[in-house]
Amino acid sequence: SCLCCRSRKMSGFLRYILDFKGANNIITKINTFINRIPEKKPTENIKVGPDGKFGIPQAAIDSVNRNKIGLKGPLMTPVGKGHRSLNLALRKEFNLYANVRPCRSLEGYKTLYDQVDVVTIRENTEGEYSGIEHEIVEGVVQSIKLITEDASRRVAEFAFQYAKENNRQKVTAVHKANIMRMSDGLFLRCCREAAKKFPDIKFEEKYLDTVCLNMVQDPRLYDVLVMPNLYGDILSDMCAGLVGGLGLTPSGNIGLNGALFESVHGTAPDIAGQDKANPTALLLSAVMMLRYMGLNSHADIIESACFQTIKEAKYLTGDLGGSAKCSEFTDQICEKIAKS
Amino acid sequence: SCLCCRSRKMSGFLRYILDFKGANNIITKINTFINRIPEKKPTENIKVGPDGKFGIPQAAIDSVNRNKIGLKGPLMTPVGKGHRSLNLALRKEFNLYANVRPCRSLEGYKTLYDQVDVVTIRENTEGEYSGIEHEIVEGVVQSIKLITEDASRRVAEFAFQYAKENNRQKVTAVHKANIMRMSDGLFLRCCREAAKKFPDIKFEEKYLDTVCLNMVQDPRLYDVLVMPNLYGDILSDMCAGLVGGLGLTPSGNIGLNGALFESVHGTAPDIAGQDKANPTALLLSAVMMLRYMGLNSHADIIESACFQTIKEAKYLTGDLGGSAKCSEFTDQICEKIAKS
Ligand SMILES: CC(C)[C@H](C(=O)O)[C@@H](O)C(=O)O
Ligand SMILES: CC(C)[C@H](C(=O)O)[C@@H](O)C(=O)O
Repeated sequence: SCLCCRSRKMSGFLRYILDFKGANNIITKINTFINRIPEKKPTENIKVGPDGKFGIPQAAIDSVNRNKIGLKGPLMTPVGKGHRSLNLALRKEFNLYANVRPCRSLEGYKTLYDQVDVVTIRENTEGEYSGIEHEIVEGVVQSIKLITEDASRRVAEFAFQYAKENNRQKVTAVHKANIMRMSDGLFLRCCREAAKKFPDIKFEEKYLDTVCLNMVQDPRLYDVLVMPNLYGDILSDMCAGLVGGLGLTPSGNIGLNGALFESVHGTAPDIAGQDKANPTALLLSAVMMLRYMGLNSHADIIESACFQTIKEAKYLTGDLGGSAKCSEFTDQICEKIAKS
Repeated sequence: SCLCCRSRKMSGFLRYILDFKGANNIITKINTFINRIPEKKPTENIKVGPDGKFGIPQAAIDSVNRNKIGLKGPLMTPVGKGHRSLNLALRKEFNLYANVRPCRSLEGYKTLYDQVDVVTIRENTEGEYSGIEHEIVEGVVQSIKLITEDASRRVAEFAFQYAKENNRQKVTAVHKANIMRMSDGLFLRCCREAAKKFPDIKFEEKYLDTVCLNMVQDPRLYDVLVMPNLYGDILSDMCAGLVGGLGLTPSGNIGLNGALFESVHGTAPDIAGQDKANPTALLLSAVMMLRYMGLNSHADIIESACFQTIKEAKYLTGDLGGSAKCSEFTDQICEKIAKS
């Protein structure tokens, strides 16, 4: 269900697609991980789980555990001391070690850039997100960036495997090993070793600052990029900016025992209940999910209906410069799917 | 002297300006911190200082200590184990706590963006650049990000003071306190406190990822930005990318007891000795230095001669799409100064 329009259109929509293509047997595999924001008390639906570790409804956790897959809308972490981000908690809880965010220029949606086609692959479980911090003495704080060989190697190998399966030419390891010689150095070594196992994929190493500089000048320089956690946070948002923002870019968190696909934009409480949100990011995340499940033809149909609707530019939501409602935009997509 | 053309044109040039304007008394204040790359043995000129801590010629260090100011070209750190970056060593040695990098669109030099006018102010002594790293057990490394109240407060106050003196409207504190609650949290608190002392300057707080996303979509959203060390490294390069790259953007490292102005691009060994390098970044850094010394009218003259030469676009170096030599470009600037 769409977080903002609060209708069940989006999940209903997915069901519709799958029904339509006669894939009823798949539906039970799909869990929409939805956190609806209640009109008045925004945190009411976020219940702290029995283990006290984080506040996702137990039923949702069970469901992902059972089905090994999930699709989620944005989650709002209750503000205040002691609450860890719910999004991060999910990534860690399910050990979703690789965060995959493709960014592609959308035909018909004009930005300053028109040939962006990059995929950031972000280590998703450690690094600057370790959560380990200390106050040594008053006014002196240290945060620990934790880099392990295991996590680095598995995300590095994932990146090359991804490149191979998706007909990508090159993997760029993004680092600051000139500064963090040991931690980023370890990450980099793992990338070099992974590169050796994939001789058909080009490999290069670049400083994070250099990538940022080059990316805004000529994004065609890059293809697949793999990097520690924080760098991925930064670079994936930057790349999303190049093609139109987080309302348009999908995301997948891949683990050994499950995968969670999500739109990474905010919950936009300011437009909640107004049927105004752009469902593209969530929809394209669903498309990624279908591909992950091997349902490529379903994915293709939904994806091209979505791209086509954006290209026609007749029913665009406010963030894309149009004035259509979320439901009108979605109707257009549904119609195209029905025809295909 | 220009690193790449190896002539003494640049430093001679500065002397010329100052002579021309009758500012002979100032010249002794100016130290060009130059590390010429010898044709054959690139590290020959980099001597390790007597304290064994880093390899900048002792005479250069003495000079900065005496004059409290310096202008330096890019330095190449000898590659290999155990060598700390010479650039970083200088920043730490002289306790140059604030790294100031203005990025402005240059009239006449077209990029995708035409109204960029931002200044990144980067904490320059600690954070992710603490240099403290451990291997806990094999394959598990931690790097320490160190944030102190003293360093955070002084750079925060510097940012507001800078904004005030330069007629800037807003300071944005850039952070990931949603992830690094204690360290970036401390940094953020110091910014909030500094903000209270400057009620005329607007203050806002933004996540680093959000700033990256917004910056590539609309750089006009930002004015002065202040942030921990690594974030500044990334964001300043990204902003430089928006206006044409590191060949065009100046930089100043400001401390309590001295200041060092530098171009932050590489040493470009591939074009060494060919009179091809673009001297703009170093020249604009010299302009920043003159302003820092209170020589505003000299600064204005050099700066506008430089901008004018770029705008005319008749004698541009290769990186700007022209075919002029470094010396031809510089001659143009000198001529304009002589006329003014
Ligand atoms: C919400 C926040 C904790 C998260 C992050 O920092 O990873 C977000 O920016 C993202 O990219 O998914
Ligand atoms: C050369 C390198 C150590 C340095 C840094 O990381 O700070 C550079 O990128 C800079 O921005 O001055």
